[in-house]
Amino acid sequence: MYPQSLKNLIESFKLLPGIGEKTAERLAFSVLDLEEENVEFFSEELKKAKHNIKKCSICNSLTENEICDICASKDRNNGILCIVEDPKNVFILEKTGLFHGKYHVLNGLISPLDGINPEDIGLDKLMERIKKEKFKEIIIAVKPSIEGETTALYIKSVLEGLDIVISRIASGVPIGADMEYIDIMTLERALQDRIKME
Amino acid sequence: MYPQSLKNLIESFKLLPGIGEKTAERLAFSVLDLEEENVEFFSEELKKAKHNIKKCSICNSLTENEICDICASKDRNNGILCIVEDPKNVFILEKTGLFHGKYHVLNGLISPLDGINPEDIGLDKLMERIKKEKFKEIIIAVKPSIEGETTALYIKSVLEGLDIVISRIASGVPIGADMEYIDIMTLERALQDRIKME
Repeated sequence: MYPQSLKNLIESFKLLPGIGEKTAERLAFSVLDLEEENVEFFSEELKKAKHNIKKCSICNSLTENEICDICASKDRNNGILCIVEDPKNVFILEKTGLFHGKYHVLNGLISPLDGINPEDIGLDKLMERIKKEKFKEIIIAVKPSIEGETTALYIKSVLEGLDIVISRIASGVPIGADMEYIDIMTLERALQDRIKME
Repeated sequence: MYPQSLKNLIESFKLLPGIGEKTAERLAFSVLDLEEENVEFFSEELKKAKHNIKKCSICNSLTENEICDICASKDRNNGILCIVEDPKNVFILEKTGLFHGKYHVLNGLISPLDGINPEDIGLDKLMERIKKEKFKEIIIAVKPSIEGETTALYIKSVLEGLDIVISRIASGVPIGADMEYIDIMTLERALQDRIKME
């Protein structure tokens, strides 16, 4: 029904997660309305991003170089390490501007039900790095799910005995959220982890 | 903060209407997870669609040729013309499979407040075509808005005196919709245009 190249463009957009038929059609039609030079830019940047971006050899975050800017920086506090489950989360946490240490990106979370064991998410590399770089403090910033809890507890257990302060980012009611829309597990956690007002 | 090529890819997605910062970031990250060959395909198809797709010289719908498949088809009823405001609507109406005539795509709708007058939306070309191809019936399928009404009434007025049946697609309560969510203007129209049950 559609001209072939429009059909192919719709199929291209559908390759992206969360883009269904209708959205893909809308986006493909909108490409036809873009300036020629913008379409060229888009087309080039797709290939460039895919070709140029790789994992930092130290922390697994994304970079165009061998080592990412954060690992290469001398201004970052080398004593603190923040562990995340996905490269995207490095950039999300950086937006807060509150953390000035280093990051380490795991290859997902432990999930025995899905057959994902500690060795599958790169914990060996993490442990080597923690010992080599002698971190004094570790913040585990993985998502508060069963898999996240399992992964956090596992990391804590293998670091047992080393002189390292380990913490987990707080879980609770999001700022500005109505209590009535918060699930019961989050509320339980918010109660358990209540902070004393002084 | 992001590597340059990731930043550029995010900017590329933001060129598309309805894609904000967060969605652009999500889509750019998901490109990194696609297979190499899929990214190449996507990149090529962007350029191909932009370069190959043009307006049909007869009806203004989208085609890779001089004349679109519908205008070129001998199986379509040449006596009926359906007028739409956007090439996308040709494909939307074709999905119903109910219309077997020809189409004509206007360049938008008359909107005096925005300085868009009858001559700006290609009505001259439409009138020439109607006279040349001797349509017996015209269905106006533009959206039921002030601009749509204005355009429909204008078309009807200039065809006055010609022996052509002119209709407008029905407006009313969408199938399956709850009455309580329907705006008052749509309800008024649904009452006015009620269909006698026989």
